Amino acid sequence: MTEAQLEGFEAKGSWVAGIDIGGTKILMLLSNQKCGGEVHERRLPTQSAEQPELFFQWLFTELKTFCAEIGCDLDRLAGVGLGFPGVILQDEAVLRNAPAFQWPEEDIRPIIAKYYSGKIVLDNDVNMAAMGEVDQGAAKGHRHSVMVTVGTGIGAALVLNGELHSGQHGAAGEIGHFITGDEGLSSEYVADGDAFGVFEQVTSGTGITERARHYFNSGKGSELSLIWSLAGGEVEQIEARHVFKAAESGDVAALEILELPMRYMARGLANITALLNPSIIVLGGGVAASNPAYYLNEVQARLKRYVVLPVQVVIAELGNKAGAIGALASIRRHLERM
Amino acid sequence: MTEAQLEGFEAKGSWVAGIDIGGTKILMLLSNQKCGGEVHERRLPTQSAEQPELFFQWLFTELKTFCAEIGCDLDRLAGVGLGFPGVILQDEAVLRNAPAFQWPEEDIRPIIAKYYSGKIVLDNDVNMAAMGEVDQGAAKGHRHSVMVTVGTGIGAALVLNGELHSGQHGAAGEIGHFITGDEGLSSEYVADGDAFGVFEQVTSGTGITERARHYFNSGKGSELSLIWSLAGGEVEQIEARHVFKAAESGDVAALEILELPMRYMARGLANITALLNPSIIVLGGGVAASNPAYYLNEVQARLKRYVVLPVQVVIAELGNKAGAIGALASIRRHLERM
Repeated sequence: MTEAQLEGFEAKGSWVAGIDIGGTKILMLLSNQKCGGEVHERRLPTQSAEQPELFFQWLFTELKTFCAEIGCDLDRLAGVGLGFPGVILQDEAVLRNAPAFQWPEEDIRPIIAKYYSGKIVLDNDVNMAAMGEVDQGAAKGHRHSVMVTVGTGIGAALVLNGELHSGQHGAAGEIGHFITGDEGLSSEYVADGDAFGVFEQVTSGTGITERARHYFNSGKGSELSLIWSLAGGEVEQIEARHVFKAAESGDVAALEILELPMRYMARGLANITALLNPSIIVLGGGVAASNPAYYLNEVQARLKRYVVLPVQVVIAELGNKAGAIGALASIRRHLERM
Repeated sequence: MTEAQLEGFEAKGSWVAGIDIGGTKILMLLSNQKCGGEVHERRLPTQSAEQPELFFQWLFTELKTFCAEIGCDLDRLAGVGLGFPGVILQDEAVLRNAPAFQWPEEDIRPIIAKYYSGKIVLDNDVNMAAMGEVDQGAAKGHRHSVMVTVGTGIGAALVLNGELHSGQHGAAGEIGHFITGDEGLSSEYVADGDAFGVFEQVTSGTGITERARHYFNSGKGSELSLIWSLAGGEVEQIEARHVFKAAESGDVAALEILELPMRYMARGLANITALLNPSIIVLGGGVAASNPAYYLNEVQARLKRYVVLPVQVVIAELGNKAGAIGALASIRRHLERM
């Protein structure tokens, strides 16, 4: 390291951290952009999640230890980006809809300030992941991108003009309640905020799994279907990934089960494209990742028939690191704007 | 006028203009914020639309005359906002999809610069109208708002975090191709960029008119229907506004004709709400305005069943002045940011 590099390394304020907080795991990244931006990484199991006070005390103690080990210092951290598995209200910084962190409805910033005095950026983990894909991954260089995450449920995150759009109540991208067809919409239908939305019921991993089990339970599926053997001959063992695997080989039952989910997913992406005119849509989450080539191909072919605007559709690239990378990118952008 | 006011009035750069350019009419607004922001207004018929060169020469000559009459001067105009009846590509400033202005695919900024040397902001008229409603009208004070305009066709404009979101190709808000149900989507369906989208076919004024005429042409409508008398007993005279007028009185045919359009409109607004989490949706255009109370009530009642997020739905307030007011607001904001 040259003397000039060393000086940069030592300079107060050139370090930043990005932290992806999960219900069971945490990923911390530390980076000093003045030293080439090498990213140091630490994974640890989530602790003390019961109370915000205890949690942040624990978290910043861990961050301090991590900093010290790589020659940094908590006081020299210019900022920390934090991604949470729930909605963060932007004006009040209250964490909501986070099953793993059932905290009181209070602003968490003053609590964090007790343990860390630098700048912070707080957001939902799906938003942070989208930011990560824009910064380093599949949407790199795109000004307007949308990330759609298909896993147990479904969600989207919007990066418009390089900025996350969180909406009035931090709930932008909650597309589970999209309406893309008549399925599930009786004349008595009323959306329920505590349940899966009609779009989510059809397109999510949970929805596809239920659809497949119902298919076999109702006697439509045959034991000759590849799904049956992949699930070890037990209906209750059938998972969405078995259906995708079987569909790839042209299994008739699988294609029939996936018809509505793939149709609705394509329609959902068509609606996003019509409303926002993004240049790229990134598909993330376990369902798309379980069989990316098949999933992407199906969605693209169907989407083409619904849209009149050009839009790229790609699979996410950063996997479970996206959230922490996005948290790092968010705090960096925040500091650059100041 | 006090001496200090006069000094403000005289100061170079405190005047701004907002111009709404229509295919047949133009509305110019001039205002000097330092003098209380009184808005001077001039309407004139559109001329010289064939060529951008001739058009802007004519337009800025008219603006100069208007300026002189109210004691301003073109050279003292700090900026001009211009709304066009077509898509403006933001990076290149090319005007597209403007039937009244079929100009070559070229950047119009250098042409404008020949006649006016100050700052300019160019955008689509629907976007400008949305900005106007945010600045002075129904969405005043809202950070995230969407304006949906229902007229001959259908379109939306997004003001997110106080800024217009135009999308990658200036086509954000082109919701004519939204998919909100199965109507019109055969297995051979392919969206056509030159035709009405499936959502537009159902929800636009044109769509409702066609639906009503078809209803009577196919023998379903009775001469006892109020629609029939409102249209003077001629199927080809039936308009969307007759249907709304009749529906207000509980006319059975009208309610039947409007069932799908109102259902789809509510679903469309539900999709916008789920994706963007705006605090307000403003309904503009002739269809909503022809019977605002009935239209609003129908949409609100239906929307409530589809959404889990709170969102206000209101009727636009500024009518045909919205575009020019928005153009004025846009250039003001642009100058303030500099």
